[in-house]
Amino acid sequence: MKRIALLGCGSMGTQIALAIDSENFPATLTHVYDASKDSSLSLVQKLQNKPEIVENSHLLSSQPIDIVVEAASQDAVKDVALSVLQNKKDLMIMSVGALLDESIYDILSDACKDFKKTIYLPSGAIAGLDGIKSVKDELESLSITTTKHPRSLKGAKFFETSEVNLDEISSSTVVYEGTAKEAVSLFPANINVAALLSLTGIGSEKTSVKIVADPSTDKNTHHIEAAGKFGKMTFTIENVPDTNNPKTSRLAILSAIETLKKYCSDDIQIGT
Amino acid sequence: MKRIALLGCGSMGTQIALAIDSENFPATLTHVYDASKDSSLSLVQKLQNKPEIVENSHLLSSQPIDIVVEAASQDAVKDVALSVLQNKKDLMIMSVGALLDESIYDILSDACKDFKKTIYLPSGAIAGLDGIKSVKDELESLSITTTKHPRSLKGAKFFETSEVNLDEISSSTVVYEGTAKEAVSLFPANINVAALLSLTGIGSEKTSVKIVADPSTDKNTHHIEAAGKFGKMTFTIENVPDTNNPKTSRLAILSAIETLKKYCSDDIQIGT
Repeated sequence: MKRIALLGCGSMGTQIALAIDSENFPATLTHVYDASKDSSLSLVQKLQNKPEIVENSHLLSSQPIDIVVEAASQDAVKDVALSVLQNKKDLMIMSVGALLDESIYDILSDACKDFKKTIYLPSGAIAGLDGIKSVKDELESLSITTTKHPRSLKGAKFFETSEVNLDEISSSTVVYEGTAKEAVSLFPANINVAALLSLTGIGSEKTSVKIVADPSTDKNTHHIEAAGKFGKMTFTIENVPDTNNPKTSRLAILSAIETLKKYCSDDIQIGT
Repeated sequence: MKRIALLGCGSMGTQIALAIDSENFPATLTHVYDASKDSSLSLVQKLQNKPEIVENSHLLSSQPIDIVVEAASQDAVKDVALSVLQNKKDLMIMSVGALLDESIYDILSDACKDFKKTIYLPSGAIAGLDGIKSVKDELESLSITTTKHPRSLKGAKFFETSEVNLDEISSSTVVYEGTAKEAVSLFPANINVAALLSLTGIGSEKTSVKIVADPSTDKNTHHIEAAGKFGKMTFTIENVPDTNNPKTSRLAILSAIETLKKYCSDDIQIGT
């Protein structure tokens, strides 16, 4: 039975922990850490099998565990990822945006090979990454269009300098078109989706991003198009927000739990 | 470095073998078998690093290898899969249709747990299985529409009793609608795609299949729709046939190679 340590006891971390704690999950959550001791305590209280709370994030990977699950922040990834691998533990990363920094990606990829460990990135709020990674060497174009209600776009850095006024949008409107590299700094709430797609395919400079504000939608929709010698793929994912945390799509939580379950099981594994 | 044995030296097996034989693949092909000795010899001739040809399929998994790659037939899966696991080797299966027989699926799933080994099923000629497996517990509907040129449908058992005359179809026409369970016996050429989708999601009795003949297309197109509490996903995959084997989509070969590469690498693994 695999032993799991959790870094980050917020909304996402809590849902992952509850899934591990459920009866049919083939693993045990043994250690947790959150920068807020209250968050750690509050999580432990909700669980049947109580994990130990460690005193700092680096103490997670020195325990007798198999994998550290990061559900904290990009800074947490930058801080602990390398030492997790050096401690010969696997790692699952939710804050995928941290890997868009190429030097960090390369260091971690090399460390995986050096220490014979694996970093897992779940498909997050999108799908079809099985197809995109298979064709990545012959991809000619890759784009993602994200459509959200204008209120879900509020506060993005893009609007500090743009003339677009979200309050005046009365029908579906393209508010931004550019590269994934530029988009992740202007629309931080989209960073994980754009980062995942870029890393899976042809990088953030060649991946196109379009952001659409649509006052008639109550979903977050991602439409992905990929074309090349193999043919063409289009994926449309209409996500319902999670009831516990409306800023996150339900799919992002389900795909994290599924990735972890696959890691913990000896079974028939479907999908590339 | 992982050691691979290959069962089946036909078109698909040959392309997988050539990929393993290429410079940047982190594994070695050490043993091969095909019911036709000529096929084995012909494959070995094409490779830089010559694998050993074994005398029967069961001798593959008794060698010092890590994984057996099946690219032979459903019968080959039924014949050797269990003994591969009993010999404590992993297995990658291309002839996924063999697993639609529930008793076989259950036996192999149990054997994976007993012998702590994994069976890998690549995403084949479709994509989006990362999303579908994540939401499988809350799927309310799952369907696939496959569109092909009428000539690509010729010879299917369905037409023995149907009044549809493929030669008379002059525009895009739905020729069949039913369950995946029924479709796989009537359209054997579609069996892997329908089997994969059924196994990933809610089973072959609840998965709907539609077959469309379109004389204006030169591609094999799969359109998948999945809906439930999480929202909705639609995937459209327009496949170009492989130049070496027009009966197979290029994506099916690429996804097999990618699955194997992932198995052989310690690295950052993207996707659920």
